[in-house]
Amino acid sequence: MNLHDQRNYTMLFDFYELTMGNGYFLTGMDKRKCYFDVFFRQVPDGGGFAICVGLEQVIDYINNLKFTDEDIAYLRSKNVFDEKFLVFLRDFRFTGDIYAVPEGTPVFPGEPILTVVAPAIEAQLVETYILLTLNHQSLIATKANRIVRAANGRPISEFGSRRAQGSDGAVLGARAAYIAGCAGTACTMTDRDYGVPAGGTMAHSWVQMFDDEYTAFKTYCELYPNAATLLVDTYSVLKSGVPNAIKAFREVLLPKGITKCGIRIDSGDITYLSRKARAMLDAAGFTECKIFASNALDETIIRDILLQGAQIDAFGVGERLITSKSEPVFGGVYKLAAVQDGDGEIIPKIKISENAAKITNPHFKKVYRLYEKESGKATADLLCVYDEVIDDSKPITIFDPDYTWKRKTLTDFTARELLVPIFRAGKCLYQTPTIGEIRSYCLGQIDTLWDEVKRFENPHNYYVDLSQKLWDIKHDLLNKANA
Amino acid sequence: MNLHDQRNYTMLFDFYELTMGNGYFLTGMDKRKCYFDVFFRQVPDGGGFAICVGLEQVIDYINNLKFTDEDIAYLRSKNVFDEKFLVFLRDFRFTGDIYAVPEGTPVFPGEPILTVVAPAIEAQLVETYILLTLNHQSLIATKANRIVRAANGRPISEFGSRRAQGSDGAVLGARAAYIAGCAGTACTMTDRDYGVPAGGTMAHSWVQMFDDEYTAFKTYCELYPNAATLLVDTYSVLKSGVPNAIKAFREVLLPKGITKCGIRIDSGDITYLSRKARAMLDAAGFTECKIFASNALDETIIRDILLQGAQIDAFGVGERLITSKSEPVFGGVYKLAAVQDGDGEIIPKIKISENAAKITNPHFKKVYRLYEKESGKATADLLCVYDEVIDDSKPITIFDPDYTWKRKTLTDFTARELLVPIFRAGKCLYQTPTIGEIRSYCLGQIDTLWDEVKRFENPHNYYVDLSQKLWDIKHDLLNKANA
Repeated sequence: MNLHDQRNYTMLFDFYELTMGNGYFLTGMDKRKCYFDVFFRQVPDGGGFAICVGLEQVIDYINNLKFTDEDIAYLRSKNVFDEKFLVFLRDFRFTGDIYAVPEGTPVFPGEPILTVVAPAIEAQLVETYILLTLNHQSLIATKANRIVRAANGRPISEFGSRRAQGSDGAVLGARAAYIAGCAGTACTMTDRDYGVPAGGTMAHSWVQMFDDEYTAFKTYCELYPNAATLLVDTYSVLKSGVPNAIKAFREVLLPKGITKCGIRIDSGDITYLSRKARAMLDAAGFTECKIFASNALDETIIRDILLQGAQIDAFGVGERLITSKSEPVFGGVYKLAAVQDGDGEIIPKIKISENAAKITNPHFKKVYRLYEKESGKATADLLCVYDEVIDDSKPITIFDPDYTWKRKTLTDFTARELLVPIFRAGKCLYQTPTIGEIRSYCLGQIDTLWDEVKRFENPHNYYVDLSQKLWDIKHDLLNKANA
Repeated sequence: MNLHDQRNYTMLFDFYELTMGNGYFLTGMDKRKCYFDVFFRQVPDGGGFAICVGLEQVIDYINNLKFTDEDIAYLRSKNVFDEKFLVFLRDFRFTGDIYAVPEGTPVFPGEPILTVVAPAIEAQLVETYILLTLNHQSLIATKANRIVRAANGRPISEFGSRRAQGSDGAVLGARAAYIAGCAGTACTMTDRDYGVPAGGTMAHSWVQMFDDEYTAFKTYCELYPNAATLLVDTYSVLKSGVPNAIKAFREVLLPKGITKCGIRIDSGDITYLSRKARAMLDAAGFTECKIFASNALDETIIRDILLQGAQIDAFGVGERLITSKSEPVFGGVYKLAAVQDGDGEIIPKIKISENAAKITNPHFKKVYRLYEKESGKATADLLCVYDEVIDDSKPITIFDPDYTWKRKTLTDFTARELLVPIFRAGKCLYQTPTIGEIRSYCLGQIDTLWDEVKRFENPHNYYVDLSQKLWDIKHDLLNKANA
């Protein structure tokens, strides 16, 4: 029934993954265990946090990894790969470990949100799909939550499918938007496959199809008396749309005792029109009629029109959500953090850059989120070496990794490990929560953030610190590289 | 073998398509033939033209249209649709006509690029997928061609999969980019499924995997002596990367008589680094070594660094191409242009708006492109009523639809109909060209545009005019609506 979770996306990799893979194979490095981190460097739109979404699709992808005979034949035709390597690929499967933050977790720049521990070829091959999936859905979730917060309790319906960047852009974008707080979607496939409630009423074409607007409205009310939301801007909102809607409500709904109904305004000055429409509806006795607004909305416009007193009960948001128009790229990267040597020792690796922000955090890591006990609020994330354990019964001193004299001692706190095991030796040991559970978890976790972190403009920089041990290892590597 | 052309995307529609469809069905309007146009209002990035791509996927979609039993069960569970309508959907197939411009055609605001003529339910149902497919691929093609033109003959490789908005964003985006002039892609799946040449060499992880940069380079040259492009910025481009590359070229390639090789610079000041690297390579005798550049490039940056004398032979372009970052939405819309009445007469329909640019062009239409005979250049597009015929052996006077006193008489021209029949009575009668043919056609058609239309900033507004007959019908409808 679900198209998505059965697809074989093995071949959705950047070609260099396999030129490298073939090289590892031929030089005997293919079994070398590698540690790769997914992390990002900047929150889109200058926000204070992002929301990590897409893990369920990563799991499906890994479970379905398999080169078909046609894939091997295609790869052979490229005249790049050794025949022995192609034979190896025929039986390829993922045998490594994956750790990740649960879907819906608020995440911050610089911390691993997913870690792959696997032989070189495997770890390299899965790079592209993992990145594109987490990047895409985290982007849309992060944007959707901004829009949800701007609407201040009013429901947001996602309905941007037609402007999405491809079918998964639409279907999985709608999934991410729901996890991040949207009330539902127009995308029917997302409902069928992921249980995100889909809904919708009419387009302008419905109104145009009839000889006049009133007949279009009346017919719709007769068909759907309990879900009559009428699109009132095909001709003129105030001169014809709202009066015709009131007439249709009065003639069709009232005799049935129905007072719950709606209108949608999709163009023009929404603030002005909604206030006028509200007054007209109230004067006619339709105080329970909800006003929906749509038309190129985003968090900035929604905040602005609400500030001006727009009388809107719910919003439909399309292209600016489903493409994250103001910032359509989530810059998650996949970087080597360590390799295992012949004796099984984990050797930390670092990627240097003249741009200090681009220097990676080396080593196989853990991430702890530290919550203040009294308020329940998240105070800092702490990156540790994999074998460190934080004991939250004792005070801990954290420090800024750049300005190390900036220190803070936490006493009454709880520490929670963010990265949980997803795959172990190629086997998925993670029970994916339902979409409703993911959504509740996501909104609950956002509640643990201070308002200062949630601010739209100039939010507080949430602390992502390194343990002393990890900081020492990193600076050791930096000093050695510079020597 | 090709995942994409067999997928059933019937359920990828906005829910309101079926609430309307159910309404048409129950009110006996379902058999009413409707004419819907796809058109757009603005070229992204302020460009002078867009490129229409995605028709092949629309054809696949229409051919695969079918509600499964599971789909019907899902729809029934929504408690919205009449049981007779659900029975009807079980045997649903597309029975209408589709006309479209061939893939790769340069197109302009306001003209139909695809027209659906079908019974109301069918025409309505296909709206979402047709729009999302044409919007997505046209967006990427239009952006890619800007980047290709900025590079002024230097090849562009698309490699943005990891930052694409979902899997089709990556796979079909790479297809669109190739049609619009990119030389190839990193996306292996796009090669397998669409024959877009995929390639790629190494990531930073390859270099980090070895004990030192030189060993990484030497090993790669040994493995791929005929395709040795080395990534030189893992540590320091000028201090280690280029010297180590030269050493590896000299020790591995020269003894084999190979002088063709390459380096890639993926960070830092590309203009400065490429000039220094060029000088170092030339001084070492590697004048045939190509320099590739990547790192958040787009048409603006490429023009700028070339203007400053960057020594770049080819570019790799990622996120800013594959998401069309500077403008990630192509605003194609799907609007009712006419309906057939009981006598088979075509009744033109118009959508009014206070914003004059949003008023639609009514009626079932043809589009002619008028080419100047002497230069072969495209001069204007002319929208006509479906039964008009342009005789290009006689002079024709075209006029600005807003400022009708602006007139121009064309004498030596040829007229070409842009919209060609794709489906007739549900049967596809269009032979899709190969991707190579589409690409050649696209680049050839762009050559028919005047430089003034191809300018990046403030391009000439290409004429999209209405025939006198169509203009009269439109103004008649406007006057009636305002009365």
